[in-house]
Amino acid sequence: MNILDIIENKKNKKELSKEEIEYFVKKYTEGEITDYQAAALIMAICINGMTQDEILTLTVAMANSGDVLDLSDISKNIVDKHSTGGIGDKITLIVTPIVATLGVPVAKMSGRGLGITGGTVDKLESIPGYNTNLSIEEFKKNIKDIGISLIGQTVNLAPADKKIYALRDSISCTKSIPLIASSIMSKKIAAGANSIVLDVTCGSGAFMKNKEEATRLAKMMVLIGKWAKRKTVCVLTNMDEPLGYAVGNSLEIVEAVKALKGDMAKDVKSVVVKLATEMLNLAHKKSKPADNRKKVLKVIESGKAYEKFKELVEKQGGDVSYIEDTEKFEKAPIIAPVLCEKNGYVKSLDAEKVGKAGLELGIGRMKKEDSIDHRVGIVFEKKIGDKVKKGDILAYVHANSPEKANECVNSILSSYKIGSKKVTKKNILEVI
Amino acid sequence: MNILDIIENKKNKKELSKEEIEYFVKKYTEGEITDYQAAALIMAICINGMTQDEILTLTVAMANSGDVLDLSDISKNIVDKHSTGGIGDKITLIVTPIVATLGVPVAKMSGRGLGITGGTVDKLESIPGYNTNLSIEEFKKNIKDIGISLIGQTVNLAPADKKIYALRDSISCTKSIPLIASSIMSKKIAAGANSIVLDVTCGSGAFMKNKEEATRLAKMMVLIGKWAKRKTVCVLTNMDEPLGYAVGNSLEIVEAVKALKGDMAKDVKSVVVKLATEMLNLAHKKSKPADNRKKVLKVIESGKAYEKFKELVEKQGGDVSYIEDTEKFEKAPIIAPVLCEKNGYVKSLDAEKVGKAGLELGIGRMKKEDSIDHRVGIVFEKKIGDKVKKGDILAYVHANSPEKANECVNSILSSYKIGSKKVTKKNILEVI
Repeated sequence: MNILDIIENKKNKKELSKEEIEYFVKKYTEGEITDYQAAALIMAICINGMTQDEILTLTVAMANSGDVLDLSDISKNIVDKHSTGGIGDKITLIVTPIVATLGVPVAKMSGRGLGITGGTVDKLESIPGYNTNLSIEEFKKNIKDIGISLIGQTVNLAPADKKIYALRDSISCTKSIPLIASSIMSKKIAAGANSIVLDVTCGSGAFMKNKEEATRLAKMMVLIGKWAKRKTVCVLTNMDEPLGYAVGNSLEIVEAVKALKGDMAKDVKSVVVKLATEMLNLAHKKSKPADNRKKVLKVIESGKAYEKFKELVEKQGGDVSYIEDTEKFEKAPIIAPVLCEKNGYVKSLDAEKVGKAGLELGIGRMKKEDSIDHRVGIVFEKKIGDKVKKGDILAYVHANSPEKANECVNSILSSYKIGSKKVTKKNILEVI
Repeated sequence: MNILDIIENKKNKKELSKEEIEYFVKKYTEGEITDYQAAALIMAICINGMTQDEILTLTVAMANSGDVLDLSDISKNIVDKHSTGGIGDKITLIVTPIVATLGVPVAKMSGRGLGITGGTVDKLESIPGYNTNLSIEEFKKNIKDIGISLIGQTVNLAPADKKIYALRDSISCTKSIPLIASSIMSKKIAAGANSIVLDVTCGSGAFMKNKEEATRLAKMMVLIGKWAKRKTVCVLTNMDEPLGYAVGNSLEIVEAVKALKGDMAKDVKSVVVKLATEMLNLAHKKSKPADNRKKVLKVIESGKAYEKFKELVEKQGGDVSYIEDTEKFEKAPIIAPVLCEKNGYVKSLDAEKVGKAGLELGIGRMKKEDSIDHRVGIVFEKKIGDKVKKGDILAYVHANSPEKANECVNSILSSYKIGSKKVTKKNILEVI
């Protein structure tokens, strides 16, 4: 077997055999297959696609390329949660303390932001002292002690996926359903959860631009989950508009803390309640979905999830005083308002444009090596459906230089469309 | 402009702009674009194709990536010749001394063998002392002095093509008409000829497996030539069977010397006469094609081309005594006969199989770094249409070990198909 034949086969739209896919994953992880050969194969997959069998084989091969966690000593039913990425997506920070409060152990490894989509690890690191880099032993100990731990992906979890993911990003091959599905599911399988709730974002700020694509991705992941004996539910959520009010690392922590105290943006609440309920449904097979929903709403009102989040921050070395008084977070030197230019209702707020503007501010990375600024971002005052008049403040831009502030103000202004009629946004599109 | 957008566009079947193609060629040659990014783009081109405009732009950009030779001080009409590659293709060695004898200056840069197809430079280097590595000044001086020089491609001739060609070979992207056409024509344009005769091989031993593909490639190259103001003629030749009797480096020199003395295999003669005539047609616009053909046949009979070849060898430092007495070439230690197993007529002799068997013997290189054995090869005694009976010698295998000899004898035997009726082979398929 050699890589040239494998590339040739996929180039010619042939189905790759189990052996061919396993050979590629193994040899590429070991460094025997070069980046340029892998790039050629990935591009051929991106264009010519993969069959179900190929996708299943690729997922399992990547999951098995490193450590596969065994969390059975903690619980027989660990529920994991993952989002396919979006703008202002701070759901993990809110939903995981909620379900942990309700007795469902949360063992969650998150990613960093890349491209226009943010990452939970970057957000958590804006809390001084918070350590996202625990050993597997510490990770498991924290879950046993307080029922929750949120860390970054460990070095040896699905290393094949890590390598292929980084390559895809640098050859414009991120938007491929077989590659996205296998990447997400390989990590989830290796991370040891028995049940998985996936937030499949859909819209301008997500990888999947329309519901049809999002549905295909969701169905593929549910299929992989079934095949790998993981209960998997996908919730399709709207990502045409940024989620909630804040976009930016520490700014999103501040919003999450508010939300944990019960003060939640409408769209954030819809998604949080839906995902938490689905997680409970999978964890507690015997309780009714409607009851689970009630439990979730009750926890939000009670403020108990906020206490759980503080416990989590403290346990991972973070300075809890920042959570208790979010005014302590260092602010960006420039905070510039974005002013509305006409009367009417917000018709749309383009998440992709906002994401790109945020990237220019320094929220995320253009390349893996880039450093980020935890202070900068955008805080919206008006969202889809809100009534506005000329001169109203639509948003505040938090920037580290006047030039960037100026540029971002213009970008944010152009992200808004103001219409004459009130429109409503559907936050939850479907459950698959 | 950035490479990610360029890759994304080609992945999505969009036509690349002139600026995008020039940016890619420049930045990849300079090393700013990585091999893996180039590999992704090349694969996308391979699968999604290129428009005429894209191919023309790519060709010119690659031609201009290094030196562009100016041979106008030698002649206003330099004719170049190129073959798309084949098994036993020693035509350059025969046809160039013929046209040089007829007063048409030959300035030819040849390639090395790669994969199963042989290269003129490797063949010439089996003559002790022959220097394929002249400076441009020496190259031009030789053409002025004796009307011919055959050398390898200089370092700075179309360096972009060199880099892209090597990459294509290692990512299974050699068989792409846009990439083959632009690769050949960029080198021809940079090499300074005004007129170009292309031997487009077609059949199992060639890149183009059927006449339809070969015709498409030929038409594309003629179009590029026209656009770049180079008179271009393509001759489609049969490469189902190896050309002539010998396959191997010094063995092909021996066959070429015989041919230059007038003793030519029938298929070699067809191709040599056709190509030489076309070269003369382009060089001497005023003389009639039928007269040119007669001149070519006369030179072959006269033995003058043989004298010209000796002059060439001497001028480039080669030991002419080897040409005067080809018995001096060192022979491989093992010479094993391939015996016919039944009576009939040779129906086919698979050039691709022969090429692969030759590669195993050490005629060519699996990878660019491999060394070759100039002695080894195959000499056929029977070709398509020949009557054979059980026990006849079909061919001799020249090998450097008994194991390789044995393996090759079996491969060569399986390359033959013996039928009950006499068949004939068409050597020249079309002129485009």
